[in-house]
Amino acid sequence: MSTPFSKVAIIGLGLQGGSIGLALAEHLPAVATSGYDADPATRTRAAERHLVGEVCDTPAQAVAGADLVIFCVPLGAMGEAAQACAAALAPDAIISDVGSSKEAVAKALGEALPTHTIIPAHPVAGTENSGPDAGFASLFEGRWCILTPAEGEDMGQVARLTALWEAMGAKVEVMDAAHHDRVLAVTSHLPHLIAYTIVGTASDLEEVTQSEVIKYSAGGFRDFTRIAASDPTMWRDVFLSNKDAVLEMLQRFTEDLTALQRAIRIGDGQQLYDHFTRTRAIRRSIIEQGQDVASVNFGRDAK
Amino acid sequence: MSTPFSKVAIIGLGLQGGSIGLALAEHLPAVATSGYDADPATRTRAAERHLVGEVCDTPAQAVAGADLVIFCVPLGAMGEAAQACAAALAPDAIISDVGSSKEAVAKALGEALPTHTIIPAHPVAGTENSGPDAGFASLFEGRWCILTPAEGEDMGQVARLTALWEAMGAKVEVMDAAHHDRVLAVTSHLPHLIAYTIVGTASDLEEVTQSEVIKYSAGGFRDFTRIAASDPTMWRDVFLSNKDAVLEMLQRFTEDLTALQRAIRIGDGQQLYDHFTRTRAIRRSIIEQGQDVASVNFGRDAK
Repeated sequence: MSTPFSKVAIIGLGLQGGSIGLALAEHLPAVATSGYDADPATRTRAAERHLVGEVCDTPAQAVAGADLVIFCVPLGAMGEAAQACAAALAPDAIISDVGSSKEAVAKALGEALPTHTIIPAHPVAGTENSGPDAGFASLFEGRWCILTPAEGEDMGQVARLTALWEAMGAKVEVMDAAHHDRVLAVTSHLPHLIAYTIVGTASDLEEVTQSEVIKYSAGGFRDFTRIAASDPTMWRDVFLSNKDAVLEMLQRFTEDLTALQRAIRIGDGQQLYDHFTRTRAIRRSIIEQGQDVASVNFGRDAK
Repeated sequence: MSTPFSKVAIIGLGLQGGSIGLALAEHLPAVATSGYDADPATRTRAAERHLVGEVCDTPAQAVAGADLVIFCVPLGAMGEAAQACAAALAPDAIISDVGSSKEAVAKALGEALPTHTIIPAHPVAGTENSGPDAGFASLFEGRWCILTPAEGEDMGQVARLTALWEAMGAKVEVMDAAHHDRVLAVTSHLPHLIAYTIVGTASDLEEVTQSEVIKYSAGGFRDFTRIAASDPTMWRDVFLSNKDAVLEMLQRFTEDLTALQRAIRIGDGQQLYDHFTRTRAIRRSIIEQGQDVASVNFGRDAK
């Protein structure tokens, strides 16, 4: 079988980087993989778990001979990570990443590697865990991966990267970076911000103890704690790098929340009922399209 | 084995009422159960599923001879449902319910049945499903059930109701109704309101299509859609009946959200990082105390 790339270097061996390494080993064993992480403990653990074929002690060693380099570091570290690899990169190596906002990444990687072909990517898949123990080979199966090549980019190179993601089980969509950032602001960034907020609010109350919040969390609160347990560095960088779109979505959310707040205050049951009826259909569609499970409580209470 | 009650009447045969009927049949088969629902189609389905021993065509028939009556109807229907039973109730029958706010329920039931012993209850357990097909016997296992007897209530009767809930697998806590309403405002009502809001916000955008929201929902959004698929009538009534506590918690949430919004706007990464780090510990405690599963993504992506 011909493979889209012969050697993939993965910079950053956490949840995303580790999962890519494991997925490639499973689905494209002919592709060589190497990896580097700035944290020595992560490198040690990555080697023990065989996240990539070769864990290297410097970024330069990792990218040597690679025809694809995927940066899997927090958004704020992309530019520096790319600079650290620049001298050792093959001139025709394709550069990609897995960052959750795409205009900022394209800019950071473009400044660090001005002569390389850069095809930013974002697999819309993850868990609340992070670090070298978090990755697993099936993370991308059935999930979407969005590629945001610049206008006029070589579509043959986009096709190579598409083939790689499809081999790992992902479905690939191409869109422009600005649109990506608005879509993800609402489907990912705003939900995380809200979850982080409410978990903070609940733990700061004086008259309701933290122990009560925990005991009675099955009433709905526990659903929010999962994504509020995600990696703080990653999410700090998401909000800083996709600021405009996040603030705009947040503004709309706040308007809608204010309208429901008013309906509660004035006792407008009909408005509440109408709103709550409308939102049911969305979940049905998400389940029909395989982006969530149909089993109640996400199946977690199954015996 | 002695049973705390000889015949339990369940008024309302949806998720909660049906689950109580099934749990009693499994754990306390010596207790007779009868039930009524205002919707004839629900009564038919309840009889097919054997949710209770006898499905009756009138509330009076259902409560005849019962020494415990549990109202499992939306909060706004409690008073009327109790009135419809009043004439047929044994004078020493204990009255309870499963409503999600407790001061309003105590008032509604107390007005309808002024001479009966009323011990309001709230099992903090549920799913996003509703109706006569939603109930299952294990719904309450390992979950908390909060009893809110009035001050000076007969503790012997509270002990009987406690025994019934413990037999169904629940852990029981007694607290006053006002405190219950504040605790649940933050652990259940506010999360539902926020989930309903964001799902509405996401489906109203012009520049991001509903189809994109659904496709990329695995980035976090899908977690919110589960509880936003809950029963609209029930939740309308929760917000109307626990208005003051919900509005107060909402006010605190909004303040916290505004602070994070400001941190994003001015680029204060340290504040974001500190907040996101703090919220991780809560989830760990929820898992340790058996109120959620430890498996990533709630275990729903497990192969």
